[in-house]
Amino acid sequence: MEWISKSNILIVGLGLMGGSYAHALKRLGYHVMAIDNNQETIDYALKNNLIDRGYSYVNEDCIKNADAVIFGLYPTTFKEWIKEHQHLIKDGALITDVTGIKSCIVYDVQKMLKPGVEFIASHPMAGREVYGVQNSDDRIFRDANFIVTPTEKNTPEAVDWCKSLGRILGFRKISVLSPEKHDEMIGFLSQLTHCIAVSLMTCNESEHLADYTGDSFRDLTRIARINENMWSELFVLNKEVLLEQMDKFADEFKVIRDMLSNNDIEGLKSKMRLSTKRRAYFDK
Amino acid sequence: MEWISKSNILIVGLGLMGGSYAHALKRLGYHVMAIDNNQETIDYALKNNLIDRGYSYVNEDCIKNADAVIFGLYPTTFKEWIKEHQHLIKDGALITDVTGIKSCIVYDVQKMLKPGVEFIASHPMAGREVYGVQNSDDRIFRDANFIVTPTEKNTPEAVDWCKSLGRILGFRKISVLSPEKHDEMIGFLSQLTHCIAVSLMTCNESEHLADYTGDSFRDLTRIARINENMWSELFVLNKEVLLEQMDKFADEFKVIRDMLSNNDIEGLKSKMRLSTKRRAYFDK
Repeated sequence: MEWISKSNILIVGLGLMGGSYAHALKRLGYHVMAIDNNQETIDYALKNNLIDRGYSYVNEDCIKNADAVIFGLYPTTFKEWIKEHQHLIKDGALITDVTGIKSCIVYDVQKMLKPGVEFIASHPMAGREVYGVQNSDDRIFRDANFIVTPTEKNTPEAVDWCKSLGRILGFRKISVLSPEKHDEMIGFLSQLTHCIAVSLMTCNESEHLADYTGDSFRDLTRIARINENMWSELFVLNKEVLLEQMDKFADEFKVIRDMLSNNDIEGLKSKMRLSTKRRAYFDK
Repeated sequence: MEWISKSNILIVGLGLMGGSYAHALKRLGYHVMAIDNNQETIDYALKNNLIDRGYSYVNEDCIKNADAVIFGLYPTTFKEWIKEHQHLIKDGALITDVTGIKSCIVYDVQKMLKPGVEFIASHPMAGREVYGVQNSDDRIFRDANFIVTPTEKNTPEAVDWCKSLGRILGFRKISVLSPEKHDEMIGFLSQLTHCIAVSLMTCNESEHLADYTGDSFRDLTRIARINENMWSELFVLNKEVLLEQMDKFADEFKVIRDMLSNNDIEGLKSKMRLSTKRRAYFDK
């Protein structure tokens, strides 16, 4: 069984992800502490045995004792927290995060940190359409990807530690990408798909159609149940990449629209053949 | 147990749908005959006990014996078949179909038919990403909707017969819609979603991203594996409706794109809240 060093782990921000991390780590035998500004969240986590200790305020003693700190905060809040409280983190500690965008976070946080504390960024590509510690569930990691996004400031030891973290949490696949490549990939695979799902759901008053809805529409709109605070922040922080992906998609959609308008059946068929061929690759 | 009259049933076109109909009806004890221009298809269906009799040519005796004829052909082929061979269908027979568009089919076919033969159109809203009789499987009906689309030319008896057919095939819900309402609904729920999935799959060379693909992208592109002959025909035959739905979607997508471009976070959030609210309705 794999084991990671840094066995006193502090999780800051006990939402769906932070709570799921806590769940997995506590069960594996690590000493799990948590800070979350909501006392009810802490009470829930203590009661349900997700954590060993928890505070609804910035408890200095708790921070000073942590060998590793995992941030389950939204990107902007994460940066603010680092700016205000990073001096409390002990020398030699490693920190990581769960945020869904990287370029606009990783370099800034690394710049702010005092020497002796290393930030190795990562993105657990897992989630649910619900949120909060009450919905946390580490089974969501099982078929999911865990991406580590080091910069040249990171040590090989920290990268290895973070990859091990992904493995012990139960992720199916651990990858390493630059922050920029990560953001490009996530802009296309995740953010663009959420924009499409929301547009499809909002473009038409569709409630009267619920009776006729088959799998296609359900599949395309599952992620249209969306946490507006988190996703609007992620979209804006990856704005340039996402706009580019949205424009690419809109251009292609227009091409297909015009083929239909012009009765270009051969054109439509060739698009469908390409689509079928590419999609088959994802079923392997 | 429900039973439908017209127990000598002829299926013309033994593809995925025709084959699945045959499978269900044969098991229920009906006498099932089939005509399909591919001899291998007929051989397969006979060998696997999907039909009692089958021909790879227009067998007059078989047609004259059918109390009911179910057409599993593509829309245009269906119309051509009716034009050429409808005189062979026996007086008092009912016919129905499986085509995914209705307005451009139903009135024309009803006009072509000789008196004494009634066409009551229907659309089994079920399918798979694979096709052919070898993939037929009547379990696909189980959670699906069956839509009957009568016109003023239809008798209440034929409508009832067709609803019963949907029920004995195992569909979850049987509905009645006008051909026009059907096409509008299908343009939005099914055709538009396929256009989106194809565009998403073709707008970007994405194979190198397969390793990072999570559920969102997989969900939105499942239907991007698409039968290009059938779907290009369905799109063109419902062109006006589909273009309108595509334009509505594209406009909405543009609105969301511009909100992002203008850092209109409140606008984005309100779209996401509407999207979440509407999607919840589909989970009921």
